[in-house]
This record gives sequence, structure tokens and C-alpha cells, in this order.
Amino acid sequence: MFQELVHAKAFQNYLEKVDFPQKPQHLYDPIRYILSLSGKRIRPLLVLMGAELFDDSAIKQALPASAAIEFFHNFSLIHDDIMDVAPLRRGKPTVHQKWNDNVAILSGDALLIKAYQELSKCPTDKISALLRLFNATSLEVCEGQQYDMDFEERAQVSEIAYIDMIRLKTSVLLGCALQMGAIVAGADERSQALLYDFGVNLGIAFQLQDDILDVYGNPQSFGKQVGGDILSNKKTILFVKLQELVSPADQEELTYLLRQTIDTEPNKVEKMMDLYAKYDIRTLAIYQKEKFTTIAYEKLIEIQVETDKKQALFSLADALMHRVR
Amino acid sequence: MFQELVHAKAFQNYLEKVDFPQKPQHLYDPIRYILSLSGKRIRPLLVLMGAELFDDSAIKQALPASAAIEFFHNFSLIHDDIMDVAPLRRGKPTVHQKWNDNVAILSGDALLIKAYQELSKCPTDKISALLRLFNATSLEVCEGQQYDMDFEERAQVSEIAYIDMIRLKTSVLLGCALQMGAIVAGADERSQALLYDFGVNLGIAFQLQDDILDVYGNPQSFGKQVGGDILSNKKTILFVKLQELVSPADQEELTYLLRQTIDTEPNKVEKMMDLYAKYDIRTLAIYQKEKFTTIAYEKLIEIQVETDKKQALFSLADALMHRVR
Repeated sequence: MFQELVHAKAFQNYLEKVDFPQKPQHLYDPIRYILSLSGKRIRPLLVLMGAELFDDSAIKQALPASAAIEFFHNFSLIHDDIMDVAPLRRGKPTVHQKWNDNVAILSGDALLIKAYQELSKCPTDKISALLRLFNATSLEVCEGQQYDMDFEERAQVSEIAYIDMIRLKTSVLLGCALQMGAIVAGADERSQALLYDFGVNLGIAFQLQDDILDVYGNPQSFGKQVGGDILSNKKTILFVKLQELVSPADQEELTYLLRQTIDTEPNKVEKMMDLYAKYDIRTLAIYQKEKFTTIAYEKLIEIQVETDKKQALFSLADALMHRVR
Repeated sequence: MFQELVHAKAFQNYLEKVDFPQKPQHLYDPIRYILSLSGKRIRPLLVLMGAELFDDSAIKQALPASAAIEFFHNFSLIHDDIMDVAPLRRGKPTVHQKWNDNVAILSGDALLIKAYQELSKCPTDKISALLRLFNATSLEVCEGQQYDMDFEERAQVSEIAYIDMIRLKTSVLLGCALQMGAIVAGADERSQALLYDFGVNLGIAFQLQDDILDVYGNPQSFGKQVGGDILSNKKTILFVKLQELVSPADQEELTYLLRQTIDTEPNKVEKMMDLYAKYDIRTLAIYQKEKFTTIAYEKLIEIQVETDKKQALFSLADALMHRVR
């Protein structure tokens, strides 16, 4: 993991040199604020690792692309938090909460444009390819956010539609990050596509795991309230699987539970878990998670570079998927 | 003006071929809607005229850039209308009014990304320069919108600050449109800069004229309620000029008027116009408008191409500034 710290440091140094003007304050202060909340910086790391996989010496050239991805990600957080009326982000007030909706809309817009400004600093002969990939991915992320909001209004969501939503909303950006690194490093198109697929499938597997851990995770290590998704009737892989399999008799119980809160039904989480157990939903969800994880690893294996060079990405994937090898 | 109709038709044909997916509906329907409200399409026309000035044969190649500018403009309308809580746009319900704020935020975001998707379709060797100009301009437009909102909260705004705000919010995009056309047509940097300055100065002059016509325009030909800016206490060139010149004695009257509505003071417009007359504000504003118009024309004159070729831009400027020559 030593190399990851080197990348993180390089990214941080680069970020500190990006120019955000002092004025107008209400436009740029929120940008400095959201970027200071930092988070895991997993996406810029993927850009740098994607470059490193094909050419060690291309890492520095990949820094603007890594900033573009991080800026895009933070732009989407600012706007998603308005739409989701979220009060907190990484334990701190969200931008629209700290300032107001208008400030959050406009500073988000400016941060999206700053992402493209980073793209314009990439090696000139690579800008066209990077721009096309980045645009297609950014639009998909918007589509994913829209489907996510649409699904909240719908009673029924199929498993296929759900997985496609998480692919668009969160996974394609991981694939895009890796592929942008590969593009900067001059990788051939076949290798680019394999690395992209590795990222997308790993991203889906990671999201499915998140759904599973919300119900079956160890509260200490998971760091969130267990059962939070059940209490808020969130569509998850467990929920959509149950919906597909539930018998007419149990549908009545499910419909009842969905109408309850922790106040009207203190055992809502336990009762929903009973339904999950009856239909073996946990096993089915783990099967899906494993399926996407396996596809991801297969794609990485298929890339034609020395196995040693892939070690860092395998380790990162293992760490994300809590795997021990 | 015949050539302008040819450009308008070429742009419309191009626009109809741009792909906006059917799904998710709430993401792309609002985009189709705002683009269908059309408006004057002045910005894409400027791109095509900017290209034509240097190379007739580059007009077709400039179509994606013209779409990028029009998409950006419409993105900014969608988001500005949320921030301004505007119910109507071009006489029709605004996007946030017809759908809701979330739909307007996200479809606006998608339209901004679609603008960059058009940029990626520009001639490959020009993309880098176009991207840098477009990014810098887009950020400036955001800064202008932020200053505009900031100024609403402030009692005092200087003339310099006001003119800088309208330069950022509306004028730089006109300069950018013209320069993008020039870039596609392969114009040298000096000519690009002159054409940009022509657009920016013309844009400022046009906005100042709009401020003047709101008070002194012929209600029939102006098409808006005369005095609307006065009734809403809008910062205009007339207002900031008066603020700078008003005597302590008249300041009392001004402060009184700013606290009145049409209900508490039916003669608010007339009384404010009396103050304007006392300080000869109209003349001073017209002087400023003429100053920027003159700079604009000088910049256009300075460009090293045959005078014949500039005729279309002179005519367009004359039409915008209601000039007769």
C-alpha cells in the first residue's frame, strides 16, 4: 500500500496548487469547503493507478485527469445533497445546509466547469479521447441519479433495473477514472476497455456489498446504523430480490412493513430480516456480489501487462471487497 | 440579412440531429422543452458568423461549437430561473415550474455536459483551444450570476462593479461565441482577440441599452412593462449612476422610494424618473452605452479582413443597437 500513499500525496500537492479565486466568495468558498472534507480520494487514486499500470512515467501527466474526476465527483455530491435534502456529508453540514440552495447550485456548476478546466490541462493529443469518455460517463452519472430518484417514487423495481441504476450512478465513474489513466499512459483500446470493465464491475460489486452490510454488517466495523436502509424503505439488492420472490401471502406482510416506522413497529428491521431469511435473500445477494467481483477480476487478469504490475489494483480491489488472500 | 436565415436554418437542422435519449424522461424531456422555446438563437449565429468572417468553408465545421454555446446558454437559463424563482421564460413555464427544482437542477447539469459533448465533436486540432476558452468563459458566467445575486442583497453597488457584473454574466459569452467561430476557421490570435472584444463590448452596450429602454423605451416597441426595473428596485446603470451622484438631501427621497411599492406609492416610477432627470442620468447612461458601442465597432474595424466580409457583423450590431445607417 506504500505506493498508494505516494499517489495520495502527489494528488494532494497537485490539488493545493489548483487556483480557486477568492472572489466571488459565495462561489468559491463552498468549493474549497467540499474539497476540504476530502473523503477517501479513491477516484483520483484510480486514475493514477490506471496510468501506472501501463507507464510509470505517465503518473505525473495523469494528475490533471485525476483532479477532473475528483472535481466531478464533488460536484455531483453538492447537487445530489440538494436533491436528497441531505443535512450532512462526511459528518459535516452539506453545502446547501451551510449556505443555501442557490449557493449550492451555482458553486456545483462552477466545480463541474473546473473539472473540465483540469481536462484541458491534460496532454493535448489525449484531450479529445479523454473528453469523449468523460462526457459519456458524466451523462450516465446524471441518468443514474435520475433513475435513483424515479425509483423512490415507484413501488416496484426489477433487479435488472436496480443494478443498471447503481452501474450508472456510481460504477461507471470508477471505470472512467481507471480508463482515463490508461489513456494518458497511451494504453491500446483493448486494454483500456478491459480496465474500464474491471472498474465498473468492481463498483457494482462494491455497491451490492454495501447493501448487504447495511443489514448483515458488524455495527462496529461498518460504521453506520445497521438496518438504516430497511427503516427508510430504500431500494437495495436485498429489497428488489425480495420483491421478485415474495409470495402473495407474504406480500401482505411486506406491504404492511413498508408502511411502518420505527415508532409504529419497533421490530420493523427484525421482521424484514425474517422475510429476507425465509427467501434466502442474503445468499442470493452474496451470489450476485460474487458474480460481479469475479467478472472484475477476470477483466484485470485479461489485461496484457506483467502480473506484478497488476498487484496494486488486485490489492485495492481486495481491500474494497474485504477479501483476504 | 439573408445569410443569417441560412445560418439559422443550418443550426436548426444540426440541432434536430443531436441525440437526446428518450429515457430517463425527467432528465431529457426538460432539455427538449427548453430548447424548443428557442428564443433568438443569437449566440449560435455569432459562432457561425465568427467562422464565416475568416473562412466561408468553415461554417459547417463550426456547427458543433454553435450547439455547445446554445446548450450552455440554455443550461444557465434553467439554473438561473431556479435561483431567481422565475415562473416564466419566453412566456412559458420555466423548467422548475413545469416539473420541480430537482428536475431542473439535474437536467441543467446534463445540458451543460451535452454542451461539452458538442465541443468534443469540433475539429480535433481545435478542441484544446476551444475547451480553454469555453471553460474560462463558463466560469465567468457563473461568477457574474453570483455577483448579480450578491448585488441584490447590497444597498450600494458602484458603476464599475455593475458593469463588470453584466460583462461577466452576459457579455463574455457573446465574445466567446464569436471567438470560437474564429478558432474553428483558423484565425490568428490577434484577430481572435479583436473579435472577442467586439462581442464583449457590444454585449455590455446592449445590456446598458436594455436598462435605458426599460425606463425610456416606447412601451409598444420595447415589449415589456416600462419602469419594471424601477418597481422591482433592480440595480441598473441608471440606478447605480444615481446612487453615485445623489446629494444627501435627495438621498432621503431615494431611500423613501426604494421602500415603496406601486400600492404604497402609485407614482414611484414617475418620482424616480424625476430624480433621474434632476441628475441627467439618462444622458450619462447613453454616454456609457455609446462608449462601449464605439469600442465594439473599433475592434471590428481593426480586424484585418476585407471590409465587405465584416458587413454582416456590422449589420447585426446595428440591428441590436437599433441603429440606422
